[in-house]
Amino acid sequence: MKLLETNRCFEGVWQRYSHVSALCQCEMTFSVYLPPGCESHSGAMAPGDRKPALLWLSGLTCTDQNFVQKAHAAAAASAAGCILLVPDTSPRGLNIDGEDERYDLGSGAGFYVDATESPWRDGYQMFSYITEEFLTLVAEQLPVSLEHLGVAGHSMGGHGALIMALKRPDLFRSVSAFAPICEPSKCDWGQRAFSAYLGSDQAEWAEYDACSLIRQGARGPGRIRVEQGDADDFLEAGQLRPESLQAVCEDAGIELEYQLREGYDHSYFFIQTFIAGHLGYHLVQLKHPATGDASALQTGLASR
Amino acid sequence: MKLLETNRCFEGVWQRYSHVSALCQCEMTFSVYLPPGCESHSGAMAPGDRKPALLWLSGLTCTDQNFVQKAHAAAAASAAGCILLVPDTSPRGLNIDGEDERYDLGSGAGFYVDATESPWRDGYQMFSYITEEFLTLVAEQLPVSLEHLGVAGHSMGGHGALIMALKRPDLFRSVSAFAPICEPSKCDWGQRAFSAYLGSDQAEWAEYDACSLIRQGARGPGRIRVEQGDADDFLEAGQLRPESLQAVCEDAGIELEYQLREGYDHSYFFIQTFIAGHLGYHLVQLKHPATGDASALQTGLASR
Repeated sequence: MKLLETNRCFEGVWQRYSHVSALCQCEMTFSVYLPPGCESHSGAMAPGDRKPALLWLSGLTCTDQNFVQKAHAAAAASAAGCILLVPDTSPRGLNIDGEDERYDLGSGAGFYVDATESPWRDGYQMFSYITEEFLTLVAEQLPVSLEHLGVAGHSMGGHGALIMALKRPDLFRSVSAFAPICEPSKCDWGQRAFSAYLGSDQAEWAEYDACSLIRQGARGPGRIRVEQGDADDFLEAGQLRPESLQAVCEDAGIELEYQLREGYDHSYFFIQTFIAGHLGYHLVQLKHPATGDASALQTGLASR
Repeated sequence: MKLLETNRCFEGVWQRYSHVSALCQCEMTFSVYLPPGCESHSGAMAPGDRKPALLWLSGLTCTDQNFVQKAHAAAAASAAGCILLVPDTSPRGLNIDGEDERYDLGSGAGFYVDATESPWRDGYQMFSYITEEFLTLVAEQLPVSLEHLGVAGHSMGGHGALIMALKRPDLFRSVSAFAPICEPSKCDWGQRAFSAYLGSDQAEWAEYDACSLIRQGARGPGRIRVEQGDADDFLEAGQLRPESLQAVCEDAGIELEYQLREGYDHSYFFIQTFIAGHLGYHLVQLKHPATGDASALQTGLASR
């Protein structure tokens, strides 16, 4: 992997890298935040030197940079000693017909699925790219503890976080989401993307729909936290459907901490307000021995 | 003034407005952060309901949005009950020949001076626009206490903050800057801009050069805080010249808190790391009766 940029921030460092992805068939860019004490990680790493990490999955139209610039997560990650892993949201520049025509399909809109339909299947393999290629790479090259890994995301990335945690509880020990697309099979965004990437067989869709996965028995790490603004236009428009997630979690006995926040919208202004609380939530569950008082982070900053 | 956008953030609200500026001869856009408790300010306002405010001046190429998105200032402003005022950095769309040719002249590069030279003098009146037109407007329309007003900025905006505080200590009770252009008369950026906006008479330049103003007797609010990264490329290139500011402050008996930060560069990653500390620094000096424990903000978050 190739280091593109490095910026000191809260005594740690934001770094941006690129690497050639076999699964995405292109050069992929990602960002990481390394908290103080793990910028220099060359040479052998003892398991105890590895840090807990939160994988962040971004929403439609985003690159890795939206979270880096706008989520204001570095202060809390620095204080807690947590690595942040921020991949891109799709392959780039594959020259697939129509890949740049719509904001909700193709570039910036990978939906965290492995496409089975032509022409998308060559490259649009975001589920496997992230859970296999990307995480393997960063665990090899950076002091990430794969035994202390959580996943969170926003909107399309909230959907991604939910399905990754439900399908790969061996990999992710905690999960949370901001304004996630809870039931993509039943909303316009999801139906368009799944039709294109997965074809018309809705049994295939169920493999990448959090509500369907739970109905079929998936349980993930056992708890889910969802933050949702009540002034979110996409909630009103029926794209997010948290009520479906609430219903299936109740049926399945999954503890869902659903926080409806008065006056907040779908933007990163909403995310930045509650990101420190989410980081604390993850760290409490990840139980890394070197983590400080994560519960204080969870309650103290979350309630601001 | 016309409300363009509003986003809830840390229980307060970021708002973006436009208004027609007589001095800039165009529509100007700005942003404000209103902390919790002052979003509804219609009707009569008792003086006690007005909040302390920090005016932020941005650097070259910026609009109001860079600070809003990247400085991560809302958490601290919310906690402290402080309004943030974020104007643009130049007039826009005046159709002056060459206004969009260079990043360091014209659009995005007003340098906070009142231009005297043609063609810039029609519109490039940023010193008077901000200290008179803009502040008068926001004090009329928003619960800003002009008796509790500080000024801060970054790079070109750090220069702006220094000269505004030095020239108008009646208006600004506190001043700080991140990586300011301390002596524009002696660096490439300043010489190019001042030649264009003010002509060749260096006596005119001295009116907008912090070091010259101090040499001529200006004292401002009496204290100055400057944050500077030691990995800042523009420091190395001689554009910033903090050593000149240190020398003139020492001669003049002005208390300069100069913080050189190891490993930090010129970016908003640097600003976000130390912005809470600056906010605390201002609030301690502004002494608004409703301010909480500003000294804790100053020391606690600044040292992270």
